Amino acid sequence: MRLGTWGPNAELIGEPGGRTRLDTPALVLDVEAFERNLGRMAATVRASGAALRPHAKTHKSVAVARRQIAAGAVGICCTTLGEAEVLAGAGIRGLLITSPVVTDAKIRRLAALNTDADGISVVADDPAAVAALDRATAGRERPLSVLVDLDVGVHRTGAATVDDALALARQVDAAPGLHFAGIQAYHGSVQHIADFAERRRRIAEALEPLRRLVQALVGLGLPATIVSGAGTGSHEIDSQGGLFTELQAGSYVFMDVEYNAIGFRGGAPPFETALFVATSVVSARHPGFVTVDAGVKALATDGPLPQVSRGAPEGTVYAFRGDEHGQLTVPAGLPPPALGTVVELVTPHCDPTVNLYDRYHVCRGDTLVEIWQVDARGRA
Amino acid sequence: MRLGTWGPNAELIGEPGGRTRLDTPALVLDVEAFERNLGRMAATVRASGAALRPHAKTHKSVAVARRQIAAGAVGICCTTLGEAEVLAGAGIRGLLITSPVVTDAKIRRLAALNTDADGISVVADDPAAVAALDRATAGRERPLSVLVDLDVGVHRTGAATVDDALALARQVDAAPGLHFAGIQAYHGSVQHIADFAERRRRIAEALEPLRRLVQALVGLGLPATIVSGAGTGSHEIDSQGGLFTELQAGSYVFMDVEYNAIGFRGGAPPFETALFVATSVVSARHPGFVTVDAGVKALATDGPLPQVSRGAPEGTVYAFRGDEHGQLTVPAGLPPPALGTVVELVTPHCDPTVNLYDRYHVCRGDTLVEIWQVDARGRA
Repeated sequence: MRLGTWGPNAELIGEPGGRTRLDTPALVLDVEAFERNLGRMAATVRASGAALRPHAKTHKSVAVARRQIAAGAVGICCTTLGEAEVLAGAGIRGLLITSPVVTDAKIRRLAALNTDADGISVVADDPAAVAALDRATAGRERPLSVLVDLDVGVHRTGAATVDDALALARQVDAAPGLHFAGIQAYHGSVQHIADFAERRRRIAEALEPLRRLVQALVGLGLPATIVSGAGTGSHEIDSQGGLFTELQAGSYVFMDVEYNAIGFRGGAPPFETALFVATSVVSARHPGFVTVDAGVKALATDGPLPQVSRGAPEGTVYAFRGDEHGQLTVPAGLPPPALGTVVELVTPHCDPTVNLYDRYHVCRGDTLVEIWQVDARGRA
Repeated sequence: MRLGTWGPNAELIGEPGGRTRLDTPALVLDVEAFERNLGRMAATVRASGAALRPHAKTHKSVAVARRQIAAGAVGICCTTLGEAEVLAGAGIRGLLITSPVVTDAKIRRLAALNTDADGISVVADDPAAVAALDRATAGRERPLSVLVDLDVGVHRTGAATVDDALALARQVDAAPGLHFAGIQAYHGSVQHIADFAERRRRIAEALEPLRRLVQALVGLGLPATIVSGAGTGSHEIDSQGGLFTELQAGSYVFMDVEYNAIGFRGGAPPFETALFVATSVVSARHPGFVTVDAGVKALATDGPLPQVSRGAPEGTVYAFRGDEHGQLTVPAGLPPPALGTVVELVTPHCDPTVNLYDRYHVCRGDTLVEIWQVDARGRA
């Protein structure tokens, strides 16, 4: 969604150097790096023969989802029903909700989104939830597509055993309101293993139950049309493993300090950092450090520290200094950035950082070219 | 602001037990505890002879600010210009922006808010920022009230020495567009010292420069009409110290795991926990634990862990399990809450948790009575 005429930075659109004068804190998207990331993931997945259904939990944005579809994605994953409602409302097709929807109120809203083929599908891991989904959709014209969620070691969601998953698949298949569409298996805990070979080894281990489940479903005459999973950290491995029909990677569009720190097949990440937080120096009363206006409410605190990418001397280090402030400490002997200077930071963990903002400031070089909305921010 | 007819939970307003059926994750305000907190802080501060200008960085809400004013507050503190714009737009008077406003674009917006006496004031800690404020307001009918910010050991914002602060006070006083209104001194780092006596000792030490500054200003013929500072952790100490004319406490309205853990004058906190995050069990595939729909995007991660307050057996422990999920582990031998159960958590750190939500679900007992907006969420 374009919002070029709204917000405190809209008057900077098209101004040379507008990126360095943003009202802060502000989310900055380097759209050229972003577009290269879209293209690289699309090419890698296409070459493997798998499909890409990238995850909107990272970006929560209609504008980004549209560009992912335009680059060849078969649809978009959502974690929350609210994200799916926002994207469906904007005409995005092929939505998959990757976390179980279990309460009656949410199931009613989900059923209302199931308006056409390839509109929406959802995962389930519990017989009671499958029964509730069936009750809400039975008698409707179109069955709701359900993927059985298999726990491959994360112990967060998913059937705990292959036998449980088989029973759920049979239950879905027998439910008049439901269509058994396949399997989801997401191994989130391996995504950030730093060493690529170790990550590959751990993934092979973790996916052994998935391999048995897929074979058993064939034996039952209930083959999984879709086998969905994988993330940015495993996309090179999972696209080659012959198990997944589609990949759910999300962070590749932006990258962050966490994903920049791990090894990929070729060593360095095949994706560029495209997302930054712009922050301004608001206090400069000490020789070696300054205070900026981005703190806990502007940067995710669940991962590593943000890294300084521009506007301050090389080697400058960020530290959280409360809800609305951070400290930039420059290397000894160097002058800190002056009062009012806009400094950019690489986001520590992109998904929860994006969730703190309403807008992307889309830049080409130093020019602000558009403002996109974080349409599904706060939509649970 | 009332939003009783909007949002996924609006249909539960007035329904018995609606609080236990909320669409989640959702922010729940126990309005009776909240009102008692308002009354207790007002009484404590009133008895001391000081004034209360409570901090909106905690709640970002017009509805809460109005109730604080109705309970006797002389105005409202804001950290960000965006918060001040939202509250001013709703008619809240006596706004003080407690972080320096230094960039030209923000200073222009600030000057536009300075429409009447007791409308808005701002802190400053830098001669360049004072000059910029003066340039933006010179020639206007009404001078902008400025408090000089003194660093009392936090090293985040504030003049680094008493002499620097005196020079700033003289500069403000000499500026035709500005009015010298007094001093701000906020010692954030002592607020969470667990032991009350140790906290009192550290505060006395930290405030020694403030005492010298206040005396020196009297000697200069520039007495500080306002001396503003203090927080929930120091309000009992700072209201008695004879230095502060007004207190900026914010978290007392809600309380959280952090503030519940420290000692107050009477031992236990004089305020009740009034704010909770409601979350639902979305996966229950293991004997000793379940997965809920509140994770890193629903609960602040900069402090302690959230604590379970209702809906699960006593002794149940929460752990983060990613952006949208958490794990509740029950004590050995007890049954975990069933799929779909709504469980409430005490927020770990209230300010950045509130910043993740758009709405407060205001409850009396188990009845949802109103929905208030987090009006200034995301307003930097």
